[in-house]
Amino acid sequence: MTTGKDLSVCLIGTGYMGKCHALAWNAVAPTFEDVPRPRLELLVEVNEQLAARRANELGFARSTGDWRSAVADPNVDVVSIASPTWFHAEMAIAALASGKHVWCEKPMSLKLSDSEKMADAAAKAGTKVVLGYNYIQNPAIRLMKKLIQEGEIGEVNHVRVEMDEDYMADPDTPYNSFFSGPQAGGALEEFGVHPLSLLQVLVGDVAAACADQWKPYATRHDADGVNQPVATHDIAGALLRLDNGSAGVFAVNRAAWGRKGRLVIQLYGSRGSIYYDQERLNEMRLYTLSGDPALHGYRKILSGPLHPPYQKFVPTPGHGLGFNDLKVIECRELLRAIAGEPAHVIDFNKGLRIERSIDALARSVKSRAWEQVIQ
Amino acid sequence: MTTGKDLSVCLIGTGYMGKCHALAWNAVAPTFEDVPRPRLELLVEVNEQLAARRANELGFARSTGDWRSAVADPNVDVVSIASPTWFHAEMAIAALASGKHVWCEKPMSLKLSDSEKMADAAAKAGTKVVLGYNYIQNPAIRLMKKLIQEGEIGEVNHVRVEMDEDYMADPDTPYNSFFSGPQAGGALEEFGVHPLSLLQVLVGDVAAACADQWKPYATRHDADGVNQPVATHDIAGALLRLDNGSAGVFAVNRAAWGRKGRLVIQLYGSRGSIYYDQERLNEMRLYTLSGDPALHGYRKILSGPLHPPYQKFVPTPGHGLGFNDLKVIECRELLRAIAGEPAHVIDFNKGLRIERSIDALARSVKSRAWEQVIQ
Amino acid sequence: MTTGKDLSVCLIGTGYMGKCHALAWNAVAPTFEDVPRPRLELLVEVNEQLAARRANELGFARSTGDWRSAVADPNVDVVSIASPTWFHAEMAIAALASGKHVWCEKPMSLKLSDSEKMADAAAKAGTKVVLGYNYIQNPAIRLMKKLIQEGEIGEVNHVRVEMDEDYMADPDTPYNSFFSGPQAGGALEEFGVHPLSLLQVLVGDVAAACADQWKPYATRHDADGVNQPVATHDIAGALLRLDNGSAGVFAVNRAAWGRKGRLVIQLYGSRGSIYYDQERLNEMRLYTLSGDPALHGYRKILSGPLHPPYQKFVPTPGHGLGFNDLKVIECRELLRAIAGEPAHVIDFNKGLRIERSIDALARSVKSRAWEQVIQ
Amino acid sequence: MTTGKDLSVCLIGTGYMGKCHALAWNAVAPTFEDVPRPRLELLVEVNEQLAARRANELGFARSTGDWRSAVADPNVDVVSIASPTWFHAEMAIAALASGKHVWCEKPMSLKLSDSEKMADAAAKAGTKVVLGYNYIQNPAIRLMKKLIQEGEIGEVNHVRVEMDEDYMADPDTPYNSFFSGPQAGGALEEFGVHPLSLLQVLVGDVAAACADQWKPYATRHDADGVNQPVATHDIAGALLRLDNGSAGVFAVNRAAWGRKGRLVIQLYGSRGSIYYDQERLNEMRLYTLSGDPALHGYRKILSGPLHPPYQKFVPTPGHGLGFNDLKVIECRELLRAIAGEPAHVIDFNKGLRIERSIDALARSVKSRAWEQVIQ
Repeated sequence: MTTGKDLSVCLIGTGYMGKCHALAWNAVAPTFEDVPRPRLELLVEVNEQLAARRANELGFARSTGDWRSAVADPNVDVVSIASPTWFHAEMAIAALASGKHVWCEKPMSLKLSDSEKMADAAAKAGTKVVLGYNYIQNPAIRLMKKLIQEGEIGEVNHVRVEMDEDYMADPDTPYNSFFSGPQAGGALEEFGVHPLSLLQVLVGDVAAACADQWKPYATRHDADGVNQPVATHDIAGALLRLDNGSAGVFAVNRAAWGRKGRLVIQLYGSRGSIYYDQERLNEMRLYTLSGDPALHGYRKILSGPLHPPYQKFVPTPGHGLGFNDLKVIECRELLRAIAGEPAHVIDFNKGLRIERSIDALARSVKSRAWEQVIQ
Repeated sequence: MTTGKDLSVCLIGTGYMGKCHALAWNAVAPTFEDVPRPRLELLVEVNEQLAARRANELGFARSTGDWRSAVADPNVDVVSIASPTWFHAEMAIAALASGKHVWCEKPMSLKLSDSEKMADAAAKAGTKVVLGYNYIQNPAIRLMKKLIQEGEIGEVNHVRVEMDEDYMADPDTPYNSFFSGPQAGGALEEFGVHPLSLLQVLVGDVAAACADQWKPYATRHDADGVNQPVATHDIAGALLRLDNGSAGVFAVNRAAWGRKGRLVIQLYGSRGSIYYDQERLNEMRLYTLSGDPALHGYRKILSGPLHPPYQKFVPTPGHGLGFNDLKVIECRELLRAIAGEPAHVIDFNKGLRIERSIDALARSVKSRAWEQVIQ
Repeated sequence: MTTGKDLSVCLIGTGYMGKCHALAWNAVAPTFEDVPRPRLELLVEVNEQLAARRANELGFARSTGDWRSAVADPNVDVVSIASPTWFHAEMAIAALASGKHVWCEKPMSLKLSDSEKMADAAAKAGTKVVLGYNYIQNPAIRLMKKLIQEGEIGEVNHVRVEMDEDYMADPDTPYNSFFSGPQAGGALEEFGVHPLSLLQVLVGDVAAACADQWKPYATRHDADGVNQPVATHDIAGALLRLDNGSAGVFAVNRAAWGRKGRLVIQLYGSRGSIYYDQERLNEMRLYTLSGDPALHGYRKILSGPLHPPYQKFVPTPGHGLGFNDLKVIECRELLRAIAGEPAHVIDFNKGLRIERSIDALARSVKSRAWEQVIQ
Repeated sequence: MTTGKDLSVCLIGTGYMGKCHALAWNAVAPTFEDVPRPRLELLVEVNEQLAARRANELGFARSTGDWRSAVADPNVDVVSIASPTWFHAEMAIAALASGKHVWCEKPMSLKLSDSEKMADAAAKAGTKVVLGYNYIQNPAIRLMKKLIQEGEIGEVNHVRVEMDEDYMADPDTPYNSFFSGPQAGGALEEFGVHPLSLLQVLVGDVAAACADQWKPYATRHDADGVNQPVATHDIAGALLRLDNGSAGVFAVNRAAWGRKGRLVIQLYGSRGSIYYDQERLNEMRLYTLSGDPALHGYRKILSGPLHPPYQKFVPTPGHGLGFNDLKVIECRELLRAIAGEPAHVIDFNKGLRIERSIDALARSVKSRAWEQVIQ
């Protein structure tokens, strides 16, 4: 990589994805061996005490409870935004206004208009922006992309995507403000962007959709045992038409007992098909028409050194990458982008296309009719 | 079983499902050991020569090329109808008019109005009618039904059904009249009833649907190499609302490279979930909440003697039933119905509910809107 | 098939495998369509009442409690021997002495000397003898055989076979005479022939072995609650050298909780490998070196019409054969042998090679040393 | 953790496992959040230039080509030994002699006498030594250990272990000195310790063994195309008797086409069983006897926050750890040991027990007889 100096990093938020960013910033240089070690300069949390403790734990030099000063800090080159979604827009726009590169978690924001402002701000800033769609970094997904581009399964004519977890499955999970407040979101808002990001990378964007959503539990008891109406929908489904001319089916469920990190993609083409389930993120299944038809069958391909950049983690195949490793790859792609090299990322423009697709699905839920995605 | 005499059987058709009927009629008595051996009396094929040959091969005493006389034959008690779908209505109605019991393959007919006439005829005849939904006879499916009824997975709130094969997947399969003629049907017509029959048995009927269908190949070349427009749709999808209050997603594809007999059911409930893939028809997967949460996981239950009537085929678990065995079970249920005993079957009334659901999906494809199922 | 007349069948025994024979005799003609329907002439059970009842249930014309007269009956052409193992030798030798064809369940007998007498008797009789190794009839196994013969996985250099069930796994199963009596046998005697029969068909016979066996439970309580010493060993293992020059590992366990019909074969060759688990008898997995190394992976091949004689059961792939179907195929091979055609069977000579291998393993258990198989 | 100051680390070797150590040293503090960040002080490679480059890439402060001075460096507290196996003994003994803690890759050494010297040196030094058996750190393995200790599967009576990869499978891999030189080792030496380390942790050590080993290819062509005899054996098998009274079967193969990181463990007990395949390191399968027998089946348990220390990596279940994460856990255990806390590690004493088991297997290969493990 050609960056003349080490990058200086500011991280906002140290929860689930914030820690994941911190681990990636620590690991990217020794893993890839071809980039300078980033300087972990500044860590932001909701107050100074917590920020100081987390900076110490995660290896950052300084800390603060004031994100506004942090994103404007002249000693910061790039800002990792891993705060709750409703802060993304304001933080990203401020960081961009200060000329920082931005690595922001998905979804972009809670409102399409905010996401549009983010994309505008990025266009004006001219710095690099990368959304945290780490699933697209999986060597197995990259292999799928390559295979599709090379026509290995012919023209894709039908897709199915499913994303399922079970953290909302228990009807006895007590009611709280996330079930109905202004920051409430359902499976569509929370999960939807994940499968659509994979579709965008592999096949194309959504052109039109017809969607539906459901509540498995119309009410939940609160801390006092009183039943409260739930506004959010834990389950959603949709029929899709993609801009490549194919069509598909979409389902998401965060109340799906037994599913922990299921993200299934089925891609059917004129000469083969692909199956992938993220609960086994080191495997993909490929069906092609080569050779004796009596021997056709889905092949289970284990990720290995022939599927870059797996080899930067382990030199032997079949030994397995983990969830956090995908973030390290994403971090490397961000550095590539900052260095002006071609990078495999979803920036705010591409991210906005995903948010607009989700918006069409949400409109369809209300209109009970097909809705076009307005790009 | 209490039937005083052996039943006398007439079989119409000896193709895929016709042979399957013949095998079941041969096997039902020695398998179940509690019913008299049916008399294989009369076999009908499209002409007398073929009928005679097939009767000899399949073990029938007499044969004919004239189905009308056959279904009226006084020496026949029950008529197996395994002819092409467009003959079902006429044959079934004639057989019923002659007072015969009828075992008819699915789908009932090509037109909803014909299916309604069939149901009317059955009501008038008062004899027993059973549709050939053999998948519901699988001991694994019966176990699922029992588990759901007993509340093992709580209230089912979300379902997904998929059915996929690949016999239409090759774009080089030449054009013929089935791609556009009056007897042409797409995946919706051909496959749709299968997953809906399983849903009916396990959860409930469809109340409303929004559907879409697609052609993977808009044209196919004919025998002269000329491209001809294809009218049928090999792929369909739908959003479903069921009459039990749950909702779901439906997808069928007969151009799905790599899928041979895939019929996947996912049932999510308030206390667990079920997964089933018919390419592994001796397995079902169950997730429940019993015991230590650290040990929760999908259990692969192999069919065995504890899952009736598996034990009539093999006394040891995990040794595997086959597709044809399910038809033997269905035949036993037909005999049960004829003997006036409670039977696990889909008769013409229940079958009509399935056909009406398919009709709603087909209407939705055209209206591009949600359609109610009119029962 | 060229047999001028229908074969007349006598069946001895109607338990697990006896019923399986009966089902096969009923199904073979309508399934294969190219053989005359065998005449189900005579059924033998331990007494006349039971014989009469079972003959009625299973479709046999006559019945008797006297097996000696039955195997000499001039109206009988072929004798199905499905009695307990310790009767095999006497019955088979008597039937052969009367000039009958014999279809005999495995293992051949409890003593190697008896198996040798059986082979001698068969050689003298000149009629056809087939041992009931139905697993070798699986279209998936036949495909494996073909692939190996054609060099698809190169030269096989390492094999592993495992057979596991759990019907002896419960330590609370009460003691009975089968745990120590003269007819007692352990996993080695009961299970061992199965994996070795598959090895014989696929790779070769055992040349030398070193074996060990274990008791999971040294005692079992009897009906009075008294602990009794158990003589049999439910678990065995062995190192194998095969006559093709390869080597392997062997394990059997009938006290393996959770295993119901597991029979796993792993075959490693110089150009690929094969994996098969009989709990999924319609699948085999093949790894070869064709095409891009980045796309190598085990292929799951679902049995279908391209894998004869699957197509005689179902015309569509992936729909699944069952355990009993394999016996129907075996019955067809028996008929082929009787008609003087090449047949895919294990006769008494080949069966004796398997019994001699088991004998070497049993000798090794005692000698605690490597033992040669004496062919 | 109670260590008063940061530990200072010296790393020897930066190949496969050396890099893995480096990644772990970088990640352990931010991942576990409860330990001070170790100081990456000194990196050793075969020459100074390479050492300097790798130190820069992997984040070490200083570098050297002289391992002897490095292990005696007063600024070093702990030495990571990730050099080729034949250096382990000399380096470890030197580091211990200088009072350093040692983290040494497995196997301990090429000769049992060297391993014994290592254990002696560790006993004298009194510092902490940890062998790099990272597979035992897998949360799934730790769960298995806990389940076995709590009696969840009863008393373990039968074990099977297999380890298979395919990097030696190609007969066209050219001959080199590793196929016959003094540092040559076969599958037994190279792979054997892995499955035995898991057995040690889960069930017990080997008490006696009978082993065999094979060459898939007796010769390999050298760079000049000349066939050279191969001394090493890529395949081995063994019958085992364990010190807990159970028995088992062992197989390893580094010429197993299609296997990439297969390490299968089967544990059968009096009340259940466990199955694990390391190619899916985030899954374990458990069969127990709780609840309705009709619902018994292997449960697939996905690793998650309920399986410590998974939660230090990702807070949500089913998202997957990778191979390198296991080394981070091991590093944390090393720090625990250094801090005087109970640690889940294999030290030189326990490691020596494994080496002595391998020695017994190797002796058995030569003696063609059962050999006792001499502890």
